[in-house]
Amino acid sequence: MQAIVLSVGTELLLGEITDTNAQYISARFRDTGIDVYKRITVGDNLTRLTAAFKEALGSSHIVIATGGLGPTDDDLTAQALSSALGRSLEFHEGAWQGMLPWFKRGGRVPAESDRKQAMVVQGGFPLPNRHGTAPGQAVLVGKGLAAILPGPPREMVPMFEEEVLPLVKEKTPGLVPLARLELKLAGITEAKIGETVRDLMECANPSLAPYAGALEVRLRIAARGPSPEEASAMVSRVEDEVRRRLGDFIYGTDSDTLESVCGKYLVKTGATLAVAESVTGGLVAHKITQVPGSSRYFRLGVVAYHPSVKASCLGVPEDAAAGNGGVNPRVARAMAEGVRAVAGTAIGLATTGFAGPGGGTPDEPVGTVHTGIAYEGGSDVDRQVFVGSRATVKEYGAQRALHVLWRYLRDLK
Amino acid sequence: MQAIVLSVGTELLLGEITDTNAQYISARFRDTGIDVYKRITVGDNLTRLTAAFKEALGSSHIVIATGGLGPTDDDLTAQALSSALGRSLEFHEGAWQGMLPWFKRGGRVPAESDRKQAMVVQGGFPLPNRHGTAPGQAVLVGKGLAAILPGPPREMVPMFEEEVLPLVKEKTPGLVPLARLELKLAGITEAKIGETVRDLMECANPSLAPYAGALEVRLRIAARGPSPEEASAMVSRVEDEVRRRLGDFIYGTDSDTLESVCGKYLVKTGATLAVAESVTGGLVAHKITQVPGSSRYFRLGVVAYHPSVKASCLGVPEDAAAGNGGVNPRVARAMAEGVRAVAGTAIGLATTGFAGPGGGTPDEPVGTVHTGIAYEGGSDVDRQVFVGSRATVKEYGAQRALHVLWRYLRDLK
Repeated sequence: MQAIVLSVGTELLLGEITDTNAQYISARFRDTGIDVYKRITVGDNLTRLTAAFKEALGSSHIVIATGGLGPTDDDLTAQALSSALGRSLEFHEGAWQGMLPWFKRGGRVPAESDRKQAMVVQGGFPLPNRHGTAPGQAVLVGKGLAAILPGPPREMVPMFEEEVLPLVKEKTPGLVPLARLELKLAGITEAKIGETVRDLMECANPSLAPYAGALEVRLRIAARGPSPEEASAMVSRVEDEVRRRLGDFIYGTDSDTLESVCGKYLVKTGATLAVAESVTGGLVAHKITQVPGSSRYFRLGVVAYHPSVKASCLGVPEDAAAGNGGVNPRVARAMAEGVRAVAGTAIGLATTGFAGPGGGTPDEPVGTVHTGIAYEGGSDVDRQVFVGSRATVKEYGAQRALHVLWRYLRDLK
Repeated sequence: MQAIVLSVGTELLLGEITDTNAQYISARFRDTGIDVYKRITVGDNLTRLTAAFKEALGSSHIVIATGGLGPTDDDLTAQALSSALGRSLEFHEGAWQGMLPWFKRGGRVPAESDRKQAMVVQGGFPLPNRHGTAPGQAVLVGKGLAAILPGPPREMVPMFEEEVLPLVKEKTPGLVPLARLELKLAGITEAKIGETVRDLMECANPSLAPYAGALEVRLRIAARGPSPEEASAMVSRVEDEVRRRLGDFIYGTDSDTLESVCGKYLVKTGATLAVAESVTGGLVAHKITQVPGSSRYFRLGVVAYHPSVKASCLGVPEDAAAGNGGVNPRVARAMAEGVRAVAGTAIGLATTGFAGPGGGTPDEPVGTVHTGIAYEGGSDVDRQVFVGSRATVKEYGAQRALHVLWRYLRDLK
């Protein structure tokens, strides 16, 4: 069963907004066992939009369009679908009644132009919108269906999940979802991974594909089988083999992050954590506190941006902070030890470096990040030099600090 | 002059990655005066990719494709372009020579399969890749051109800027760029803005369109005129009128952020800043330190996540911190005053609240964010209740804190 996704809006063609809807629908169809084989983006132009619908309806069972459902003259999606199908638009009293509470809530009287949003293609039916005014609509076409959904993701996503996916599943019994698993790796490059598992990457089913991110690589394993159980078993066999070869670098799966995995270790061991940041400017603390329940183990973050603060708040010796503008391994270590002492935690983690664009010395150029980690009876320092913008150095530096923390927690006995 | 953008890659159709290339190219063409009138996404399938090229070449002067230039069997973009044009692929010695340093740098000997990446469509020419192995290529076709570029944005963007845009401009003299300006507003909803400037939004040229973000709204003004000067003048007239009606809410333009605008005020006045965060967990400090040169005014951030730290590091009175789990206006004020005193800065900014999903009290539910600001001779507190995930509450809370800071700095005499 094949699908085409149609994204509608001149703002997309102007590059004003990112099209997250098409990606969302693609991923959900992938999970469901439906192939999206083409995506089309067109502007708010009736002729082109109608042509795009005709093309999609002529080549695919399932056509999902997003955007262009509002009350203004350049909202043309329903009209284009009606032209492409050669069916008229009809005022739908139920759709209209569903919109009225939204006008009331917004404190305005519906205008004549608003009635346009309740026009439904003949033979189709409205899809209720629980998060905005404009309803969507769906039309069964032969063995498939066409659906048009609002553009704002907060309206589109629930409508897709609650209305469209159930319809699609009903129309296409026997779908075998793609089995998939993502392994998350840190501390190894995409190239090195490629060398290690090239033979597995050459197989089409199960497939293995790497996606490089910020100091981490996602390895996606996917399989289609005659049954969900067999597809899962195919994925598991590849997973086992990848873990055998690359296990030391795998920190988690799917939605795991370094900070969420560290959080699990910290909860399990009962250890507490404090962080002192210079170069990463609060980003390490921000990442750690994105994890629900992080207040159970995270006690204190100090962003010691001014040299005097490194001494006064963290007790970094002034002679250490003097060298290379406060960027050296001794400072990283002293910051980690200092914040651990101030907060009274089991672990102290610290970053210092130069994010740029200014600063840097011959020994410690822009992009340098030292990570210090202090714990009962010891401490370590890690040094990296990253290339990129200020934002990149901060992002990579924070990821590296979390990687240092993860390695320490993983290896705890 | 019209363009079609073609995004190539099964990973796009599977929803594995976001297509930022198509948006980037769309925005740059918009700025240059070229209309992108359709975007197409297809997978690594020769038949479909060739059909997409034929469709694009048949309907548009400029065709830009990204992705599918690598050495593996499913990298098919050059082959598809050659089929669509009915021209052969030829080995290009210059392209090959340009690739060799990349193999050397990666420490590997080029394989026979790598030569594929130096195959150029007859009559076309390679586009050098300064950031990766695979060169791009361009072919002049009639009055227009087709170009194929690598998928990774760090390779695609420089090639587009340095090679493709100059070619496009050379082929299409007399382009009149779209004149545009974005006004950034905070402290007002999109709906309220709509009510205030509805009459201006009804005009097609110059056009005015709002885009809602996290606690801010971007208002884009755009105009096409017979000359760049006249288009700019049209934009300025709308800008003046919007400023007259909404000036109090406009904090900047285009790439300005609340933190960059606050930074300019702080540099100008010589004032220094310290931040104490609970609910936002380091995000306010992270945003502030994203601004180059922020070390000139930002001294210290304290992420006081544990109640005891609010007292020990910031001097928050224990009886204040006891009420509602440390979430109340008194604590926000005391944190702002405390961090200002510890760091010896002109201004102290602080947040406390409940990010969720756990926590919250009847008086201070999940989503509550108190922002305190302390300065010479006074202090203020702001209270908001946001609805959304933990990440949303942190993001909105941080934006609100920066908004409170911006209002204070703007109103300084």
